[in-house]
Amino acid sequence: MEMNDINMQSDNCDPDRPAHPGVFPNREAGKSDHKPAERSVDFPVSVVLPAGGTGERTGLQTPKQFCSFLGRPLISYTIQAFERVSWIQSIVVVVAKENTDLMTDIIQRFQHRKVRTVTGGSTRHRSICNGVLALGSGWEEEEEEEEGGSTAERPKVVIIHDAVRPFVEEDFLYKIAVAAKEQGAAGAIRPLVSTVIATTSEGYLDHSLERAKYRASEMPQGFTYDVIHQAYQSCSESDFEFGTECLHLALQYCGTNAKLIEGPPTLWKVTYKRDLAAAESIIKEALSRTACVLTGGSAQAVTLADALQKAVGALEMELDVIPDLTGDNARYLLKEWNFIQVSVNRSCLSEVNTMLAALEAANRALLHPLVVILVHLSTSDELSVSGKMAEPAAIMELASAAKLRNILLYGVQLQQSKDTERWERSVSRVAEITSSLIRERSSALVGQLLQA
Amino acid sequence: MEMNDINMQSDNCDPDRPAHPGVFPNREAGKSDHKPAERSVDFPVSVVLPAGGTGERTGLQTPKQFCSFLGRPLISYTIQAFERVSWIQSIVVVVAKENTDLMTDIIQRFQHRKVRTVTGGSTRHRSICNGVLALGSGWEEEEEEEEGGSTAERPKVVIIHDAVRPFVEEDFLYKIAVAAKEQGAAGAIRPLVSTVIATTSEGYLDHSLERAKYRASEMPQGFTYDVIHQAYQSCSESDFEFGTECLHLALQYCGTNAKLIEGPPTLWKVTYKRDLAAAESIIKEALSRTACVLTGGSAQAVTLADALQKAVGALEMELDVIPDLTGDNARYLLKEWNFIQVSVNRSCLSEVNTMLAALEAANRALLHPLVVILVHLSTSDELSVSGKMAEPAAIMELASAAKLRNILLYGVQLQQSKDTERWERSVSRVAEITSSLIRERSSALVGQLLQA
Repeated sequence: MEMNDINMQSDNCDPDRPAHPGVFPNREAGKSDHKPAERSVDFPVSVVLPAGGTGERTGLQTPKQFCSFLGRPLISYTIQAFERVSWIQSIVVVVAKENTDLMTDIIQRFQHRKVRTVTGGSTRHRSICNGVLALGSGWEEEEEEEEGGSTAERPKVVIIHDAVRPFVEEDFLYKIAVAAKEQGAAGAIRPLVSTVIATTSEGYLDHSLERAKYRASEMPQGFTYDVIHQAYQSCSESDFEFGTECLHLALQYCGTNAKLIEGPPTLWKVTYKRDLAAAESIIKEALSRTACVLTGGSAQAVTLADALQKAVGALEMELDVIPDLTGDNARYLLKEWNFIQVSVNRSCLSEVNTMLAALEAANRALLHPLVVILVHLSTSDELSVSGKMAEPAAIMELASAAKLRNILLYGVQLQQSKDTERWERSVSRVAEITSSLIRERSSALVGQLLQA
Repeated sequence: MEMNDINMQSDNCDPDRPAHPGVFPNREAGKSDHKPAERSVDFPVSVVLPAGGTGERTGLQTPKQFCSFLGRPLISYTIQAFERVSWIQSIVVVVAKENTDLMTDIIQRFQHRKVRTVTGGSTRHRSICNGVLALGSGWEEEEEEEEGGSTAERPKVVIIHDAVRPFVEEDFLYKIAVAAKEQGAAGAIRPLVSTVIATTSEGYLDHSLERAKYRASEMPQGFTYDVIHQAYQSCSESDFEFGTECLHLALQYCGTNAKLIEGPPTLWKVTYKRDLAAAESIIKEALSRTACVLTGGSAQAVTLADALQKAVGALEMELDVIPDLTGDNARYLLKEWNFIQVSVNRSCLSEVNTMLAALEAANRALLHPLVVILVHLSTSDELSVSGKMAEPAAIMELASAAKLRNILLYGVQLQQSKDTERWERSVSRVAEITSSLIRERSSALVGQLLQA
């Protein structure tokens, strides 16, 4: 049923055409931060994601593709990157037999669509081959009631990607798909970071390669179904056992010289332990660019929100200021935004409760933990004493409950001041604290009431 | 004068000898987290650090080597990696003319020794060549009163490294230095992460290289002074202009086949923007492994500290529990530790003030921001009300002052409970909060009094 969402407008394959609004169904908006697609393709495209690696280079026990980032395994981010592309009809994830249940859990838990799992072989090529064969044979009987059903057709183009390259973008997938259809095969390349050298068998330098003539072969790669299918039908046991490069098989067994396309640095592969930190940082940064300030309509709250807007602008975050999430503003519930609820001289816990319920109803914390910050402004001349305007215990309790639903709740309080300098210092402190909370997403600090 | 610290024991060049304690002068201990060296060398070794790059691949305006991590430029971390190796006699940093003042500032500000700056050329090879020539010519007149003075001798071996590979370790430098002395040249290699392919001029696949036969050439590389000097004397303008590989020049102009040594993943080069996040994460992790809990001798504080010790053990942090920093325990002031001061039913601000003064006197926050956490335990049955046992305003004030001295101060308070389950929950929350504060080192949150 959900296959109806896949857009295959035949008039939409010209790369120079303007963006087609509406290519992405609306309910996708809450699941990803993509811009509307600029291009679509008029032929069926499917994806094979080999995810059988053991991750030995990270030095961790969990294979990299199953390492969690903000509570979600890396493979789910990669699936999401393909799932949100309207013209991709299906995704086959190839996993080792012992990880099949884990993968099925991940697909269910994060509500992935268009995806099915097949069992890998003993080497990378055997696994990819299993994935390709699965695409040819159509969907299994027992999965008929799932997404895809019987409407899936055999793909014209198969994109092969790595489970551990989660940041691939739609634009680049488009280039690979179109070039693969035209040339039979296409692959991403990147400039070499290091000089490549040939070694003697005794461990000495033999010669170094001229860097300009060589490239690193990366993923994704695309093939017409016929080319990749034939390559795997014809290749030798030794290819299956020791080969790593699909482009090489296409050349050797189908005579197809792949078109090579330089990809962006975001194609990078999570390989070493340090890459886990880099990936987490990229994911956090993407989630921390925008927040929505709810003022409840109070004039003083609006003044504070406007000041905050300026202050966080300097911290490279964008704030929208709205009174609440009703009416037209309900659209903010569908976006990848964080929320800041401002209240003046009173508790806003009931508004926050309402907001949490709305976020939960919109399934907004399914893929990422969401940040909600309560900002309490006190305009009284008395010194701020906790318990007076904010209720630390109540906030902590609410935060503990919200955390179970993947929402990270924090509180910040500040004192109105007629001294301009003092007031500006407080506002800039609120800006620093809120942007730090949003960026770090620390689960250890939920429920804290911080002073600005 | 400081050159006296450089240890060149002639009996210490056998790789199988046991560690020589005391190879590192004591005052080094506060500056780095290295283990005592296992090996030394009996010939003079110097380092050339080309740092003229423009960092265009990170997409940032600041060249990568000058990007700051926890308030310190990357190049300073790399210098530190060499400076702490006792058998390295001097380091020449080659920078673009426009960055000379910046580099001089960095050397002064972070009190680097053994280092001088020379001006780079228009290409990488010209810059390295300038560095090598500077090593041959000895120290400049005007720098005579600085470290090194006239005691520096022409190095037997020159190690060339990248300013943007800060995590190089002493063990590996040792291997490179010894192999370079024996073979004339030696270089670090790593397995290829991606297949390398040759492209046709039209952008199609020509052929792919057999991955097992090739390696990525990395840094550091080592050369006898004579080999690298002759290579640069003999090489062509075209080599100077377009070449990148020093090992290649040694082969071509001196007939020296470099010994290739597989290095650890830590040799990796900060190249892309994502690498900045990875580097920061590695630095933060290294600084977050250990903390020292000061109990003031109170029995209740000791009980809490012991419970904390167990709880953070699960979070992969090591805690030492001591009463205070007097007597023998003053040694903790010289280590790469963070500090947790526990107080029971009273303010510990005077102890913290004393500690801050001692840390400042030991110059402990010179290279990294240091974390100090106040933990207030209240054993009274009354509900915890801020102002009662902790003084939020006083902590904030102290923290603001400490921040200027690169010390990050935070507060945590908790309530004693006779309910075991409740007490254990509080303790584990203190553990989570303190380890999160130590790991994140957020400057936005200094001075906050958090509730456990």
